[in-house]
Amino acid sequence: MIAIDWGTTSLRCYRLDAAGDVIDWRRSGDGVLAVRDRHAAVLADGITGWDDADILLCGSVGGRAGWLEMPYVACPAGIAEIAAGLHRHEAPELPGRHLWFVPGAAHANGHRAGEVMRGEETQAIALAGILGSGTHLACLPGTHSKWVRIEDGRIVSISTAMTGELFELLRRHGSLASLMPDDPAHDADAFARGFADSQTHGGLLHHIFAVRTQALFDALPAEGRLSYLSGLLIGHEVRALLPLSGLPRGAPVHLAGNPALLEAYAQAFSLLDVDTRHHSERISAAGLHAIARQRGIA
Amino acid sequence: MIAIDWGTTSLRCYRLDAAGDVIDWRRSGDGVLAVRDRHAAVLADGITGWDDADILLCGSVGGRAGWLEMPYVACPAGIAEIAAGLHRHEAPELPGRHLWFVPGAAHANGHRAGEVMRGEETQAIALAGILGSGTHLACLPGTHSKWVRIEDGRIVSISTAMTGELFELLRRHGSLASLMPDDPAHDADAFARGFADSQTHGGLLHHIFAVRTQALFDALPAEGRLSYLSGLLIGHEVRALLPLSGLPRGAPVHLAGNPALLEAYAQAFSLLDVDTRHHSERISAAGLHAIARQRGIA
Repeated sequence: MIAIDWGTTSLRCYRLDAAGDVIDWRRSGDGVLAVRDRHAAVLADGITGWDDADILLCGSVGGRAGWLEMPYVACPAGIAEIAAGLHRHEAPELPGRHLWFVPGAAHANGHRAGEVMRGEETQAIALAGILGSGTHLACLPGTHSKWVRIEDGRIVSISTAMTGELFELLRRHGSLASLMPDDPAHDADAFARGFADSQTHGGLLHHIFAVRTQALFDALPAEGRLSYLSGLLIGHEVRALLPLSGLPRGAPVHLAGNPALLEAYAQAFSLLDVDTRHHSERISAAGLHAIARQRGIA
Repeated sequence: MIAIDWGTTSLRCYRLDAAGDVIDWRRSGDGVLAVRDRHAAVLADGITGWDDADILLCGSVGGRAGWLEMPYVACPAGIAEIAAGLHRHEAPELPGRHLWFVPGAAHANGHRAGEVMRGEETQAIALAGILGSGTHLACLPGTHSKWVRIEDGRIVSISTAMTGELFELLRRHGSLASLMPDDPAHDADAFARGFADSQTHGGLLHHIFAVRTQALFDALPAEGRLSYLSGLLIGHEVRALLPLSGLPRGAPVHLAGNPALLEAYAQAFSLLDVDTRHHSERISAAGLHAIARQRGIA
């Protein structure tokens, strides 16, 4: 089968064997925001040469701005509920293929419209399969970080933080952008300084101005500014969400995402004496395979 | 004399009579960021027909990205210190004119590089003149809000919040931008809802995602989304900075800025049972006049 993790800014295509192992994969920047109405053509391109009939898709490709809008499955949701929510779709441009869209997950937490995610439910299902019974906390950083609590194989709560998006907005636009070097390496000291400052008084809107004042008075080397900002923002996220996460005492936080981001989050948790376990972004493929098998497709 | 309040995004020119009253004024979007190296030409255009020799300038025109970089006067700073810090400059393109640049103010608060402001020191000096002795709190909203404590006519502390900048970034760029109607009126109910949510758990990075979930599930009318976001952000600013501000019990907060912004901040303070007094943006002209008189120019 073919597993597709199609988010707002990237497309990841995996070809899996019968055991669910990745035998080939491709990645491109053709995220949902970029492809507009050319989904079928972009997908055909991404899977060229792979002749498997069944294609499972997760991520914002199933969102309002995606290919077709899938409903959300209500938490608590495990692999049974998510597999039952698969929607089969045939695209004329892709003869002989069966597209299966994975539903998102929604958590009615009692506050306003609650919480939602698309794509991360599949990662959480993969983690649930790896980790087995008990309570586990997944932190899935990205444009929007998703904190997902898993109890005995089911997703029971979701919390979102728009940390990655705010980091990009501040880095690329606005008054701090001109202070930021192009692509500095992660600076662990500057990150730790920002992380420490995130717990001082005054709040996030106040704290980020310190990027500017330190630049004005040369109090922070230019190469450290981006990591300082990252430490501030991730510090605010982690300090606010960890106490609400239900992480069992002494248990590790399970991180999945791109390696550079995981390095930053691992440092943040480590500064709070919380252990982390790192998982590859490819767990999406494992999650899609498990969902397919549950439905009797793979 | 002529008073110039020249910030990053706007230029305000005032012609004053000997008593300091505004007899003519002009405003344009030729902020410091837009004019680059054409300061003299843009200023000449702004004061066409006004033949007064002395021109006082405050704001980021005296900053690193401005016409010339002025030092900062250290707090505590009153009108004497600021007038003493005026820098006279002659521009060949403006024969017969004396340009006087107002220094910024810096507050070494013991944290990192401390705090700075440019332009708001002049508004604070104007307020100090209006309010007289005692302790007063000024909240000067804008791209960056400045909270300024004034004691017996001197600026003693500064705190910055990048609220306005973040509001613009979220409104114009990123994943919430497409949800925002163009120019809705202030929606007091939606603002109050955002303000209330700013004190729930989870932190700012988490809270702003509720703009998206409420849009997804039609839990907030489209016209209210911008005011909801404004209430969230201003709520975070005010709740974090008010307790640190040293506002005397029962005293009002003095607000100066554009009327739409003052309306929002006044609502926020009112929701915390704090009174406000509103001052026009034009107090910059009064401050520049007072500084000129102190120096013996006007």
